[in-house]
Amino acid sequence: MDGQIGERWSMAEMFVPRAKLESFVVDVLRKVGVPKADAAIVADVLITGDVRGKGSHGVARLPRYVNGIRGAKIEPTDKSRIVRETATTGLIDGGNSLGQVVGVRAMRLAIEKAKRSNVGLVAVRNSNHYGIAGYYALMALGENMIGISMTNTFPLVVPTFGRAAILGTNPIALAAPTDRETPFALDMSTSVVPRGKLEAYDREGKTLPLGWAVDAEGRGTTDSKAVLDNMANRRGGGVLPLGGEGEEFSGHKGYGLALLVDVLCGTLSGAASGPEAYRKQADANLGHLFAAISIEAFRPAAEFRKDLDHLLRSIRDSPKASGRNRIYTHGEKAAEATRAAMAQGIPLGPKVVDTLRTLGSSVGVPWVSG
Amino acid sequence: MDGQIGERWSMAEMFVPRAKLESFVVDVLRKVGVPKADAAIVADVLITGDVRGKGSHGVARLPRYVNGIRGAKIEPTDKSRIVRETATTGLIDGGNSLGQVVGVRAMRLAIEKAKRSNVGLVAVRNSNHYGIAGYYALMALGENMIGISMTNTFPLVVPTFGRAAILGTNPIALAAPTDRETPFALDMSTSVVPRGKLEAYDREGKTLPLGWAVDAEGRGTTDSKAVLDNMANRRGGGVLPLGGEGEEFSGHKGYGLALLVDVLCGTLSGAASGPEAYRKQADANLGHLFAAISIEAFRPAAEFRKDLDHLLRSIRDSPKASGRNRIYTHGEKAAEATRAAMAQGIPLGPKVVDTLRTLGSSVGVPWVSG
Repeated sequence: MDGQIGERWSMAEMFVPRAKLESFVVDVLRKVGVPKADAAIVADVLITGDVRGKGSHGVARLPRYVNGIRGAKIEPTDKSRIVRETATTGLIDGGNSLGQVVGVRAMRLAIEKAKRSNVGLVAVRNSNHYGIAGYYALMALGENMIGISMTNTFPLVVPTFGRAAILGTNPIALAAPTDRETPFALDMSTSVVPRGKLEAYDREGKTLPLGWAVDAEGRGTTDSKAVLDNMANRRGGGVLPLGGEGEEFSGHKGYGLALLVDVLCGTLSGAASGPEAYRKQADANLGHLFAAISIEAFRPAAEFRKDLDHLLRSIRDSPKASGRNRIYTHGEKAAEATRAAMAQGIPLGPKVVDTLRTLGSSVGVPWVSG
Repeated sequence: MDGQIGERWSMAEMFVPRAKLESFVVDVLRKVGVPKADAAIVADVLITGDVRGKGSHGVARLPRYVNGIRGAKIEPTDKSRIVRETATTGLIDGGNSLGQVVGVRAMRLAIEKAKRSNVGLVAVRNSNHYGIAGYYALMALGENMIGISMTNTFPLVVPTFGRAAILGTNPIALAAPTDRETPFALDMSTSVVPRGKLEAYDREGKTLPLGWAVDAEGRGTTDSKAVLDNMANRRGGGVLPLGGEGEEFSGHKGYGLALLVDVLCGTLSGAASGPEAYRKQADANLGHLFAAISIEAFRPAAEFRKDLDHLLRSIRDSPKASGRNRIYTHGEKAAEATRAAMAQGIPLGPKVVDTLRTLGSSVGVPWVSG
């Protein structure tokens, strides 16, 4: 529910048709040695991020991947391999390949296992940034399955009573199919806000709400610039977990969820976890976890879909708070952003357009004509 | 991490040895027709709640169960049955039996399935209040497994931009085994605080922090009495999801987690979900979900345990916020409360002691001598 459609629309420099943006991303990746099919996967995951209103995990990330490949920090070709496998489980070593390529392979494996065994659970180690967590969860919907995806990430989050950023924003995504309603699609970082939100406040010179971040001493702060500088230089301070500072609003729960993700993605797979993610310059060693659950193992999928419709409607149709006229269920804002992007093109801000244009010219791929 | 040990200790009326309290609970339940073995399960789950510092889900709940049985709202004997089963999954109809009896049966089934198939996933419908979610997750630890438990509950939580309490406090628990450190044991409601916290503030005449609850119009309020009255009479208002009011501190994430629990516990099992839990007077029709994951399917359990030790230590040993001298990991406070309860007895407040004494005399079971 992070995307504020109106805001993104008004700030957009240009609206790019999906097909053109896809070609651009694929062409750029091919220039640094990524095979065409893999480049198409990365492009689809990134652009789906933009389309669903999560621009911070969209094509804006492409330069980092390209620089990672150029700097020998990410493998351009898929080096992932299945290390261990049972009828229900899989462990994949990502071989330091592109996170999206590894992620799609792992989620497909989870789905294949669930087709035969009703549940599929695949852990991944030695991977990289994989884009929006929700992409992989959504892959399960067409199979009458519930999809789950999570990953650990760069340490930006300060645990309750701490002052060092030693946990990732560690997102959790779960998608479940409906009949006529928008599918339930939760995709949330376990921090109170993502780093991108601090950057947006910083750009606009606004002070942060107290409860988003702490300074190098672990005290609540409203100074976005200082927090971003401190995080970039690992001087202490960072983003707070969901629930905020201390225990009064249950910040220890958001911190617990971040740790849960690290246990399931890092410890279970043998990837880096907590403060050790991205510690080695040449190897992020991120961990992911993917799960697929066949609904038919529990009840007819058609009944499940109808009942989920009913649940979502009963929430949306419930009385609204004073001054509010709509209750959203998770996935609705992304679906609306998707419809808008299909009609008008994908909204990209001026900074993203600049960066992509420069990136393109550095590898000899012309930026799309608007 | 809810238990404030010092506070509970100073407010305690008496400290009861575990064995005595167990006998009392078992004897009371037997008087209303619960078989001895089932009564022992209920006693163990409830007392484990008290012992781990979650008194709101401990023996204080016993009167409700007894009244439920007397009022023909809960079956005294176990009417649960396995409705559907595969090598990896199970669906149990609880038959409106005691939630603890059904819960332990279901988690045992999940563990048995994981022993053979590496993953076990059991959904339950038509059940009742099952005590602390963490109890069932902890059952997996001795088997070199990760345990997961969640349940939907009575609707007390208001969704983002709503003003009616139509979601439960829907807890999520996950436990993972360690080598030498306290096992990771997250057990959290997905609301900002549990109802019991509002009741405690009300008893002490304290105003609530803004961000815990909303009034009947869906506006933030500090008036605990009004919120509790409104919830009891379903006049609107209630507890806020983790992340608080609106979207500024990501209340939509806590709301999303509550909904995730309802999808997995209610919709997947065919139990009541959202506002429909407890709607029928004679049948709460709660849903639970239990999962067990064999660590050995992914990597040697001894390695996992050592790596989890290392992760937990790296967090606890990280720099502390100004004015703080300790970072807790999840399960540590409960472990300390357990040690204190073993040494001194289980701390019970005056109101709980009164209620239990009265309950005991109503069925002819004398209250324990202190």
